[in-house]
Amino acid sequence: MSSQISRQIVLAARPQGKPTKSDFRLEEVEIPSPSSGQVLLSVRYLSLDPYMRGRMDDRQSYAPPTPVGDVMPGETVAEVVASNNPGYVAGDIVASRTGWRSLALSDGQGLRKLDPKLAPITTALGVLGMPGFTAYGGLINIGRPKKGETVAVAAASGPVGSLVGQLARRAGARAVGIAGGMDKCAYVRDELGFDAVIDHRADDFPAQLKAACPKGIDIYFENVGGAVWQAVLPLLNDFARVPVCGTIATYNRRDGELAQDHLPATISAILAKRLTLRGFLNYDYAEQFSDFLREVGSGIADGTIRYREDIVDGLENAPDAFMGMLEGKNFGKLLIRMP
Amino acid sequence: MSSQISRQIVLAARPQGKPTKSDFRLEEVEIPSPSSGQVLLSVRYLSLDPYMRGRMDDRQSYAPPTPVGDVMPGETVAEVVASNNPGYVAGDIVASRTGWRSLALSDGQGLRKLDPKLAPITTALGVLGMPGFTAYGGLINIGRPKKGETVAVAAASGPVGSLVGQLARRAGARAVGIAGGMDKCAYVRDELGFDAVIDHRADDFPAQLKAACPKGIDIYFENVGGAVWQAVLPLLNDFARVPVCGTIATYNRRDGELAQDHLPATISAILAKRLTLRGFLNYDYAEQFSDFLREVGSGIADGTIRYREDIVDGLENAPDAFMGMLEGKNFGKLLIRMP
Repeated sequence: MSSQISRQIVLAARPQGKPTKSDFRLEEVEIPSPSSGQVLLSVRYLSLDPYMRGRMDDRQSYAPPTPVGDVMPGETVAEVVASNNPGYVAGDIVASRTGWRSLALSDGQGLRKLDPKLAPITTALGVLGMPGFTAYGGLINIGRPKKGETVAVAAASGPVGSLVGQLARRAGARAVGIAGGMDKCAYVRDELGFDAVIDHRADDFPAQLKAACPKGIDIYFENVGGAVWQAVLPLLNDFARVPVCGTIATYNRRDGELAQDHLPATISAILAKRLTLRGFLNYDYAEQFSDFLREVGSGIADGTIRYREDIVDGLENAPDAFMGMLEGKNFGKLLIRMP
Repeated sequence: MSSQISRQIVLAARPQGKPTKSDFRLEEVEIPSPSSGQVLLSVRYLSLDPYMRGRMDDRQSYAPPTPVGDVMPGETVAEVVASNNPGYVAGDIVASRTGWRSLALSDGQGLRKLDPKLAPITTALGVLGMPGFTAYGGLINIGRPKKGETVAVAAASGPVGSLVGQLARRAGARAVGIAGGMDKCAYVRDELGFDAVIDHRADDFPAQLKAACPKGIDIYFENVGGAVWQAVLPLLNDFARVPVCGTIATYNRRDGELAQDHLPATISAILAKRLTLRGFLNYDYAEQFSDFLREVGSGIADGTIRYREDIVDGLENAPDAFMGMLEGKNFGKLLIRMP
């Protein structure tokens, strides 16, 4: 087999605040045939996730920044199209971390074979993948919902929030979702079965949230930050737990903007209510991944756990879709489908 | 016994930012003889503690605000001067919560008898009282120091910080103290035996703190907030624990001042480093109080645990002493001695 052309999207420039199209660049590169031990992957689906915004900044976090000029990072579902690795044959479907590109070589490390008969392969990027495991790991280990407690989560129609609420209900807790717009709210209430859902765009959002949580909030799964956190803070009960997995509301903020300093009020509440805020990354709980797959997979199989995908065609549309996601324009797990 | 005159200091007005003298008022009131079941207490020592600043504001916290016109709240050590309660005789020394006054009636509830032979009675307000138990409860239950870890604490010459560092060292950890001024730093290093101490007034305080923590910080016992927190945050290691017992640096801040919003950076660090911030109040661990008294009391008795008191004479001087404490002017546990 001779070399092939891969399309890939690289980080062209570091965004100042909101990313723009010029921060991305579509390139074509030659991919050689797989050498000994390698497989050639053809990407079927690319996952777009909020954490990628953090990698675009020149700031050390739990992962190093993506260098300018490098392929944007990301999880994908791919098909093995040629294999020089005894563990894989052409036709195998794998979850992988190829980044934003159409073809990639892999030595097999970090690949996870998927069985298309068990669940749709796209779920490996959503409810049965990193986002779902983020919901599971944070809720089970830090939130620890008890019967009768109230669990609140934002981005409730998204891949993390939707599972947080459904797992909370399975634990006997009351699930209160926060979402943006009527359609998402209807989906969270009617399809996902949350006990209550609030539109964060409503003028009286804090009052509505308060009314929806008559016994306060025992667990707030933090994945957005910003104004939602300000509305949640006064409702948290003593000894409430706050798993922190992200704060999408602040990812596009520029450094040094003057504002109210919200830190003292948050720290005062941590003290007065004896809150626990704890950050986590899904892979901190890697040893629980098979439990997660079994429990959530069985819920998917019997229809008691629901999920929704928002699929956009074409790698060239990934930047627009990604920028839209940061503004809440997607509805369900955002995926790019490759032809 | 006929009625007697008690002197008391009441909250005259709610402070705007820093308290001023006019926010306090000295009054004299008549105290009747103890009725059946009551004792009459003559206060020997009044404890002044940072949390009292919070009670002066009209803001619900873990305790309700002190109403304007009410006696300022506070722990005291008092002598029973007349008893109509079978549990107490004149001459008994008790720890009590009479507030800022010279005489008080009590039905015995919440009193704790002290044995002056076991330890100086003033220690019941400091190293063997609420401040000491705050250090103990937060460090043992949330910080959980392990051998070789680094524990940092501010206000290190004060009653909480000084015990945090000494208990950390007993657990085999490295104690790094932060204090204001050369005298306090020398005391923390030479008398208390901390492994390192940094003056937060130094221009290059963040760099000095970093140099003093070559292996980062595993536990930061948060009792000051503000600029110290900003310097500590980048030094925290993955999975660091932050017991939060107060933020004296922000108590005198006015609402609504524009500043940099430090909350997003803190939340980002909580996520990226998987920090645990947990608020607590000493009485959350009430069942550990006797363990605390035994362990710390034996350290006091054999001289391996040190403490320092800053004693001011006269109830009328309590407002000035209290305002000075909020600026770090005290050196050791601040107490008002009554004649």
